[in-house]
Amino acid sequence: MHTQPLLLRKDQERRLLAGHCWIYSNEIDTKATPLKTFEPGQPVEILSQSERWIGHGYANPHSLICARIVSRERAHPLSPALWLQRLHEALALRERLYTAPFYRLVFGESDGLPGLIVDRYGDRLAVQITTAGMERARAEILAALEQVLRPQAIVLRNDTSVRELEGLEPGVEHVLGEPSGDWILTEQGLEFAIDPMRGQKTGWFFDQAENRARLARYGVGERVLDVCSYVGAWGLRAAALGASDVTCVDASADALERLQSNAERNGLSARVRPLQGDAFEVLRQLRDQGRRFDTVLLDPPAFIKRRKDEKDGTAAYQRLNRLGLELLEPGGLLVTSSCSFHMGRDGFQRVVQQAGQRAGRRLQLLETGQQGPDHPVHPAIQETAYLKTLFLRALPAA
Amino acid sequence: MHTQPLLLRKDQERRLLAGHCWIYSNEIDTKATPLKTFEPGQPVEILSQSERWIGHGYANPHSLICARIVSRERAHPLSPALWLQRLHEALALRERLYTAPFYRLVFGESDGLPGLIVDRYGDRLAVQITTAGMERARAEILAALEQVLRPQAIVLRNDTSVRELEGLEPGVEHVLGEPSGDWILTEQGLEFAIDPMRGQKTGWFFDQAENRARLARYGVGERVLDVCSYVGAWGLRAAALGASDVTCVDASADALERLQSNAERNGLSARVRPLQGDAFEVLRQLRDQGRRFDTVLLDPPAFIKRRKDEKDGTAAYQRLNRLGLELLEPGGLLVTSSCSFHMGRDGFQRVVQQAGQRAGRRLQLLETGQQGPDHPVHPAIQETAYLKTLFLRALPAA
Repeated sequence: MHTQPLLLRKDQERRLLAGHCWIYSNEIDTKATPLKTFEPGQPVEILSQSERWIGHGYANPHSLICARIVSRERAHPLSPALWLQRLHEALALRERLYTAPFYRLVFGESDGLPGLIVDRYGDRLAVQITTAGMERARAEILAALEQVLRPQAIVLRNDTSVRELEGLEPGVEHVLGEPSGDWILTEQGLEFAIDPMRGQKTGWFFDQAENRARLARYGVGERVLDVCSYVGAWGLRAAALGASDVTCVDASADALERLQSNAERNGLSARVRPLQGDAFEVLRQLRDQGRRFDTVLLDPPAFIKRRKDEKDGTAAYQRLNRLGLELLEPGGLLVTSSCSFHMGRDGFQRVVQQAGQRAGRRLQLLETGQQGPDHPVHPAIQETAYLKTLFLRALPAA
Repeated sequence: MHTQPLLLRKDQERRLLAGHCWIYSNEIDTKATPLKTFEPGQPVEILSQSERWIGHGYANPHSLICARIVSRERAHPLSPALWLQRLHEALALRERLYTAPFYRLVFGESDGLPGLIVDRYGDRLAVQITTAGMERARAEILAALEQVLRPQAIVLRNDTSVRELEGLEPGVEHVLGEPSGDWILTEQGLEFAIDPMRGQKTGWFFDQAENRARLARYGVGERVLDVCSYVGAWGLRAAALGASDVTCVDASADALERLQSNAERNGLSARVRPLQGDAFEVLRQLRDQGRRFDTVLLDPPAFIKRRKDEKDGTAAYQRLNRLGLELLEPGGLLVTSSCSFHMGRDGFQRVVQQAGQRAGRRLQLLETGQQGPDHPVHPAIQETAYLKTLFLRALPAA
């Protein structure tokens, strides 16, 4: 079978040869290879203007990123064999690094599978397909997952807004196994129940697991404030590390209810206090009440989802961090995260430093964590690095 | 006693108010406060052009950085009380984070003590003074260290070239206790002997301790190559983690001799092979012999010491990393460091990615480590962040 070529304009191959795998529509020689001749998700061979062969990939004429490279070996086109090879590679990394089978198994571009996310909850998988190319290969991908992992259940969590950019419909469905309520995972000795059909992301934020584990090193003290707690991953970790009074703030009553049942599951209910409300409002109230904490954990949703949100989002990060710092006992620990790709690491450090100035605190940055190694960064694709978690000691001004 | 004022030119206070503590000579109103009227190291009060009080600090008319802020509280001038307060703060952080007393106790600006480095080896201290201001306060600083830590020995390791920038003479001397040969330290269960008078830095690279500890998570396999091994901190860690065949490359025969005696001390001699020579030459030879390793550790000295070395240094990093990658078994682990401040984190990632392209490897960046928390970063002073250690999996091209 012949794969249709996609010809780049002159001098548009450089970023791709350096390792990136996205091709924008303005980089295509649309006279030679008009985008409208491609179906969404159709496999293509990407060629430079001088017809140098660059890679196998897939196209989507309806997306700004109109093609992605999947393989750079001519002998390895998009095929079940390629999916199997990629999954084996991805699994080998996680099996090397994790003792328990709870992790992100496939992280898109970084695992050589652009458009595919797979989270592993033991023998259950949550799968997210974000591009037309992967949607087209869906049956092959699911078959490869079944072959490599022999899962008991697979849920498709295709309810992410990024699918819209590719012209794909949202949807959540069981494609293997029957709906059977909550799924259970363990993280460093704690057990959590998540909702695979409706939870945020695929139900769990695996990307922060390493940073939560780091809390053991830093110690949390007695009084901990966990802001945007979701179902308790941070807060219960703090409680397990010995904090006796963990205040968990979240806007969602459902999340807090689940947090409480997770606390019970781990015998930590007495240490945890859920507090429902808007993070900014609740923090202002706590500050005005004169409350103080030994550790403040800030892990909000992305305030900068698109570049146009940059100004407002930056201001929101600064406000939240200032409030967090004002609530810290001198010498206390601030653990503050941003999962906004558009807020770079240096920029986030600057925002937190400014918040420190305004809160009258001298900050020492002890460590900068990132997404865990089950979310590897593709070093040529900066978009694959998004999470920053700063560990800071806050001293009184002097 | 009245402290002499140092007046800034108009609009030169912004960076300082944002938290930085360095003042460059071109930022001074030298008509109002001529630099030549200050003695090297003399305490000053820094004022904006409009005479807004900014901080207590010290001056040095002979240095490009002609003053540094030490305190931002008017009631806390440079004095024994200030040194004591800063040392107690610094010690509180380390005592919180470390179970054994082996760490950098004072990291200059980041601990509010610009110009002072103190490394702690149990009840012995290695002290480095890098500015005229701290030199002038030397007796007070040493007295404060004795009061807070009650050390048995203090060695001044003033043999660093940065003292030249301040017009200070180099020198190494015992200022407390008698010379008594090697000092012993432990790092995660291994014991090392270092030479406090002649070792690199103060004898040990505490800044990499966290990254070495991370090796346990990633695993090192059987065959490990440790490049620029110095006295064996990385190589012996790899051996302790189970590597049976650790090749340690260093240009210094003395360092390798010490490495061997450190190996004996820990019962690891059979696992370690020293190989003396230039790193680039040795790696080329190993490559040409067809040798392969499961893990390659690259921790060279700074290739970019000054900005003018940027081009050559970048090329050197790229060559070294390419060689390291060519020596890796597919699927192997590369742990590669740069301690050059002038090589930023993003730049270093780019260099390693390029080396990967040239070596025909697909890289996955699993984690980016930095200097440990006993070298905290001052978030307003980017110069305090210098170490980058990338943990990467190298897959065959595909």
